[in-house]
Parts: sequence; C-alpha cells; structure tokens
Amino acid sequence: MLKGRNLLGADDFSREEILEIIQFGTQIQQSPEKFSHLGDGKILGTLFFEPSTRTRLSFEAAMERLGGKVIGFSAANNSSTSKGESVQDTVRTVSQYADIIAMRHPREGAARLASETCEVPLINAGDGGHQHPTQTLTDLLTMQIYKGRLDNLNIGLCGDLKYGRTVHSLIKVMSLFPNNRFTLISPAELKLPGYFKRSVIEAGNISYTETGSLEESIPDLDILYMTRIQKERFYSEADYIRLKDSYILTAAMLQQAKPDLAILHPLPRVNEISKDVDSDPRALYFKQVRCGMYVRMALIAKLLGVDKNA
Amino acid sequence: MLKGRNLLGADDFSREEILEIIQFGTQIQQSPEKFSHLGDGKILGTLFFEPSTRTRLSFEAAMERLGGKVIGFSAANNSSTSKGESVQDTVRTVSQYADIIAMRHPREGAARLASETCEVPLINAGDGGHQHPTQTLTDLLTMQIYKGRLDNLNIGLCGDLKYGRTVHSLIKVMSLFPNNRFTLISPAELKLPGYFKRSVIEAGNISYTETGSLEESIPDLDILYMTRIQKERFYSEADYIRLKDSYILTAAMLQQAKPDLAILHPLPRVNEISKDVDSDPRALYFKQVRCGMYVRMALIAKLLGVDKNA
Amino acid sequence: MLKGRNLLGADDFSREEILEIIQFGTQIQQSPEKFSHLGDGKILGTLFFEPSTRTRLSFEAAMERLGGKVIGFSAANNSSTSKGESVQDTVRTVSQYADIIAMRHPREGAARLASETCEVPLINAGDGGHQHPTQTLTDLLTMQIYKGRLDNLNIGLCGDLKYGRTVHSLIKVMSLFPNNRFTLISPAELKLPGYFKRSVIEAGNISYTETGSLEESIPDLDILYMTRIQKERFYSEADYIRLKDSYILTAAMLQQAKPDLAILHPLPRVNEISKDVDSDPRALYFKQVRCGMYVRMALIAKLLGVDKNA
Repeated sequence: MLKGRNLLGADDFSREEILEIIQFGTQIQQSPEKFSHLGDGKILGTLFFEPSTRTRLSFEAAMERLGGKVIGFSAANNSSTSKGESVQDTVRTVSQYADIIAMRHPREGAARLASETCEVPLINAGDGGHQHPTQTLTDLLTMQIYKGRLDNLNIGLCGDLKYGRTVHSLIKVMSLFPNNRFTLISPAELKLPGYFKRSVIEAGNISYTETGSLEESIPDLDILYMTRIQKERFYSEADYIRLKDSYILTAAMLQQAKPDLAILHPLPRVNEISKDVDSDPRALYFKQVRCGMYVRMALIAKLLGVDKNA
Repeated sequence: MLKGRNLLGADDFSREEILEIIQFGTQIQQSPEKFSHLGDGKILGTLFFEPSTRTRLSFEAAMERLGGKVIGFSAANNSSTSKGESVQDTVRTVSQYADIIAMRHPREGAARLASETCEVPLINAGDGGHQHPTQTLTDLLTMQIYKGRLDNLNIGLCGDLKYGRTVHSLIKVMSLFPNNRFTLISPAELKLPGYFKRSVIEAGNISYTETGSLEESIPDLDILYMTRIQKERFYSEADYIRLKDSYILTAAMLQQAKPDLAILHPLPRVNEISKDVDSDPRALYFKQVRCGMYVRMALIAKLLGVDKNA
Repeated sequence: MLKGRNLLGADDFSREEILEIIQFGTQIQQSPEKFSHLGDGKILGTLFFEPSTRTRLSFEAAMERLGGKVIGFSAANNSSTSKGESVQDTVRTVSQYADIIAMRHPREGAARLASETCEVPLINAGDGGHQHPTQTLTDLLTMQIYKGRLDNLNIGLCGDLKYGRTVHSLIKVMSLFPNNRFTLISPAELKLPGYFKRSVIEAGNISYTETGSLEESIPDLDILYMTRIQKERFYSEADYIRLKDSYILTAAMLQQAKPDLAILHPLPRVNEISKDVDSDPRALYFKQVRCGMYVRMALIAKLLGVDKNA
C-alpha cells in the first residue's frame, strides 16, 4: 500500500513496491493520455531549496500530465528561509496548501527531517550527495521498457563511483533482482567507497568487477551507465580538474559494444559522452528523461492513492 | 457588492463586506471541492516585487483550488522593473493577461498607486510595513472557525506592536465587532505607537490593557496572537538583537492558559514560539495557514464575481 | 501547413502563413472563450535564459487561455546551464516534457542552434538583438484589428532604428503588403544601418523617408511606432545617456496627428511616451499587449496543430 507514504531514500520501498511503480509507469508510457485526469483537483508543491531545473520540470510536467496543478519555488532565496524559518516549518506550511510535495535541499537528511512535520506525502527530489530516489526509479523504468527486464544484466557503471549518489542507489536496488552483475569503471581516486563495498556489495554477495578501463569493459555490457564528474562534490578544485575528463565515450568506442547495449546517463552531461554518440540508437539518455516523467506520474498517483481512478 | 473591487487596505471593506467574505470562507473550508470550478478559465497574476513564499503560494493554491490558473513572478529582478519600467506600467501590462492580480511590493503605497492603472481587480499582498489585508482576513476566518465568533474576545497581541502591520490591522478590524478587549504585550520600545493609540484605540473607545509580561497575561486570554520581531523593520541591528527574543512562548507557560485558548501567529516564526508548543491542540498557527488559503479562495471568487456559480 | 513547424525569425513564415495566423488571432480576439480548450492536455515549456517578464507572461497566459499548462524557468541561474550543460541539451531535455517550447536567450542564433536538437516546435522569444518574431506578429495583429488593414499605411518608426530588432523585422514583414511607406525617425547616430537599407529597403523598392524630426512627421502618419532606446544594446554608457531622451511623445504633439492614428510601442517604455498620452484613444500600446497574448494563442494552436478543434 503506497497511498500516503513518503519516498525519502531508495531503501524506503520494498522490491514489490518498486515493481508496482515500474509496472504502472510502463502502462503510463504506453498511453499517457489514459491517465490525464488522475490528478484532477490535486496540487503538487515543488520546494527546491537549491536549483535543479531538470528534476523540477520533470515533477511539474508529471503532475500536469496527470491533470494536476503545481505551486512552488525554484531557489532558496525565494523562500521564507531567508527570514529565518526552519525547513520543517516551511514544509509544514506548504503541506497546508498542497496534496503532495517534492523537495530538494543541499543538506543531507533534510528531506527526512522535513517529513517529520509534513502533513502530506513527501518525495525526496535530492538531498545533497545523499539520496535521489526518483532518479533510481527513472533508471529502472528505462531498463524495464528498453531492455524488457531488470535481471540478468551486466551493468557497467562509469565515472565517479565515490561521490555519485545515483550509482550507489542503483547498485542497491538492482541487487534486489537476480543475476545482475556490476562492472565498476572508475579512476583509482573515484572507486566505490570501502564502506559501501563491504556493507552492500560483499554483504549482499553481489557479483562485481572493478576496472579502470572503459574501452575494455564495453564489449560485455548490457547497460552502460555513464555519470558526470560533479564539481560540487569535490573539496579540491585541482582534483576536479585532473579527474573530470577521465572518461569520454565516443562513437568509435561503441563499435565493440553489443547491438542492444543501453547507454544511460542521469544528465546533465558535460564532456563524458561525445555528441557523436547522440544519434546512435543505443543512446537512450534522452528517452530516459522522458521515462523520468512517466515514473514520476506513476509515483505521484500511487502516493496520492488516485491510481485506481484510471 | 464586491465584484470588480480592489482590496488595498484593511479599511477598504465594510463590516458587512468582511462578514460576507468570512461567511463564504467558512463554507469553502467545510467542503472545498464544491467550489473547485468557480475559477475555471480565469487567470491570477501574482506580481511579487519582493519575495514572500508563504503569501504567494497561498494565493496560487487558492486560485488553483478554484480551478483557475496562475502567471507571475516571485522577485523584482525577474520583472521589467530592471529595464526602467514603472510599477504602474508593469501592473497595467499584466492586467491585459490576467483576470485578477495579487501584488506585493517593498514600498508603502505601491498597491494603491498600481490600482490607478490596473484594469482588473487588484489585491494588496503586502506593501512594505503598511498593509497586508489578506493576513487580517486570514486571522478573522481562523477565529470564526475555531472560536465560533468574532466578538466578546480577550485578544492578547504579543511582540512588536510598533512596526507590526498585522497587529494594527487586526485591532482596527476586530474593534468593528462588539465587546472585544485587547491585551497589548510588548517591550517598552515596541509599544503601540502613540498616534495609533490616540486615533484608533482611544478615539474608538476600544478597551485595552498594556503590559510587558506575557506570563501574567496568558490566563485571561481567549486569543494569543504572537508576532515575529521582524529584522527588516528595524533601523538598527543592535536594537533588533536586543529585542528579538523578548518573548518566547513555551509549553510550560501554557499550563495557566484557558483550555480553549487559540494561539495564532502570522508566520514565519523564528524563536518566539518554542517547538514544544506545536503539538498542543491550542496551537492553531498551521491551521491558520490553511484558513489563509480558504479566505483567499473566497476573496478571489467574490472580486471576480463568480461566487454565485457554486 | 504550420503544424510541427518552428518560428525562429520573422522570415520563417510566408506572407500566406502570416496571414493565416493573423486571421486566426482576429477570431480569437473576438471571442477568446471559444478557444479555451484547444490546448487541453498540452504543455508549453518557457525557457527564459534571460529575464523578460512581459514576453514570458504573455506566452504563459496564451497557453493557459487555450486550456494548456506551463513549465519553465525565468532566468539562467535557475537552469542546468550553471552545471555546464549546453543549451542544445537543455532544450532537448525539456522537449521530452513539453509539447511546444518558447525560448529566450541573450545570444544571437541561440534559438536556431537549439532547434537542431529540440523534438517539439520551438518558438524564438528573443535571441539577443537579433530576432523576436512574436513581437512582429503582435504588431501585425494590432494593426489588423485597430486599422482594419496591413497595406496602404504610412508607418512612422521612431527611436533606435540601428539596434532595434523590432523595427527591422517590422519593415521586412510590412513590405510584403502593398503600398506601405515608412517614415524613419531617428537621431543621426541611430539611423537604420547601411547594410539593412541596401539589402532590404533598396533591394525591395520599399518607399521610405528619413528624418530627425518627430513633430514634423506626425501629421502624415497612420501608424506611429515608438521604441525605447535600450541601454543593453549600447557599448558606451555615455552614448546611451546622450541619446536616450531624443524623442518624447507628448499629448501636445498629438494635436497635429490624424484622428485615427495608431500609436504603438513594444513596451516597456521609459520616457519616450509621456504619461499624458496614455488616456488618448489613439494610444494603443496596452491594447497591443493584449493582442500579443491573442496572437500567441493563435501561433501556439497552429504549431501544435490543434486549431481545427475549435
């Protein structure tokens, strides 16, 4: 039962609950117009204490395509925070106006804190380097639609595996499904952190390989998940500059790839995928953007409990 | 007849007109969904020349819950003002697009000036330290719903009674109803201004007491209206720092209060109400937020002249 | 056939296509409520990489009056650009969410570049000093409605004819219609550029006069199109200050004008039209603002291909 629940972290939902959302997202993707009145009369509050155009617009389009409406703000300086109000009070206030809230905040744990006072379902749309669970649902829906399955996949994760919250969530969730293997591609400095490897990968008997070479890894992959090296996660500018172009996927490198490889990326990208890859039918990252909207439609409808009105 | 009118200050409406809005707000609060199509096809313009998330979102949610739509901006730097346009021209322009406008501006009198060129009903959503009439309507609807009356109340007003526009408007409007008494609780420096006391309180034969002590006042009150000491109203930082924590309402202090005391606050709060008060059933300030949305629904529908469509 | 097309510059549409939009705009202006469901279920993305309240709100009101919804941003710092994303990627991303996009950008050519990756119709809402084609459509609809024709007009263009993109587009488009004559009124430093005069005016056998005097020109004009001297187009602050008040239209000057003169201005105005002109029935610039909304309704409906649903 998802009605009335929050989504704060990728661990909040069981395997069955995740599948329920992905299945509903698949139906929506097939004929979105069938679901265009589920949210009639409902309001989504988008509280973005730090800007994130892509995520915010995805939530807003999702709500609007359900027939609902939106209120919100897109940056902290437009909020009451500047008058000294706590995040808990701001969120509790907006929960008097809205039926559901999507919130982004630069501080880890902010969404969980806010959920304590929020009087409507709260979706974490990113809290610092911590959690971004709707990105993970986006990745899953894309794989389900374009690969037809969530199991038996060799998944290459390339780039910043140390700070990349997307990657950590994806490993955790994909390991709920049988026979997935991970190829972890990163420079030595940006390898998966030791604590994560011990507590998740090794504790969960998850099959994985670590490597520094993208080119050598490509031929075996079913999924190649590229990530941006994010400047805002680094403490040192020099480290960022040295590492930011560690991997650049080009059209030439894809000649060795499987014909049904799925290339994903949470976007925005900077240099890590060359523009000559965009026209390759295996480049699915813009289709993934659209899946993000569909899965958010599914999630919002489930948390509002209006999914049965279809 | 409220159709086509402006609401610029708390004095603009007669006692009967205020009651008409409060009565309609009460109906809306009881079953908001009955009124969810009054505003179909109508557009609200929210022109916020200074940020005020709470007020802006309240107006936007109100319009959306009536079935209407919203256009607008949330800060001056997003407006044409930066190109040298006058506020009168900006408002006249937006009145070509929208059916009704809510406007906030840092300068006193800006709303009245704008109303001279505005071609649709204009609501003052706050002009500097001057007027904020929909906050007063919010306070009234909250008292009507949770106390069941607007008369025969002992109303404690605590905090900044010198600069607090909310407090001044509330005294004026509540003195329209019989047998209300005011307990004015403030530090000596933030007492009700002399001009106001003479022209409103004494001229109107309004019953009042002045005191510096919140604790001694609490036992007799029906309403305790707390206010934030607002940094932006002070000329001196030192004065602000010295006075900002003059009153902090705590759960312990409420043991002496009446069982049906109503604790109100226009929000945002900083320190003046301790968080341990939030769970007290007498703490109504978040319910008050919701009343703010309902009373704005009533006001918008009345000014648009669509309230009879219900 | 306009369905699925872009509008990037004033040259993109043929004379017949322009007339198709103007004719539809005229119908909409007569009874907008007949068209209030054409856009049901559709989303407009407003991507404003630089602020322009007037234009953004016009597009948003247009979409909402068609029954559609809006997502977007109003300034670059709220967009993914700050994370290093290209404009092409941002627009391609939003085209996964929206059915049509209106985009404004400070750099010339940005809209054309973006159109290469955009997967839905793209409308240029201004790219630097270059193109702003919906302003030209606005001007045309205003003339059609208030003068009843687009030909046989003596059109005075006054102010900055050097940098003013609006003026250049208007000359090009109005010269598609027979017997229009242009009176070009400007200081010597802000005359129509030589390249434009040669390639457009002289190559097209367009009838024109150049003059420095607004007062002497007024009596013969059917249209007086005033423009703001725009600070942001000047390289030198001193030049701007010297030239900004070259022309100030006053009520007194209009005593010599035809009784059916139409005074237009793309707005915002600063000093170039005195406020005492506003009450003259020949002052049509605020009616022009409303025509801007109607013509954008017509354009959006045509590009979406939903105009036949009326």
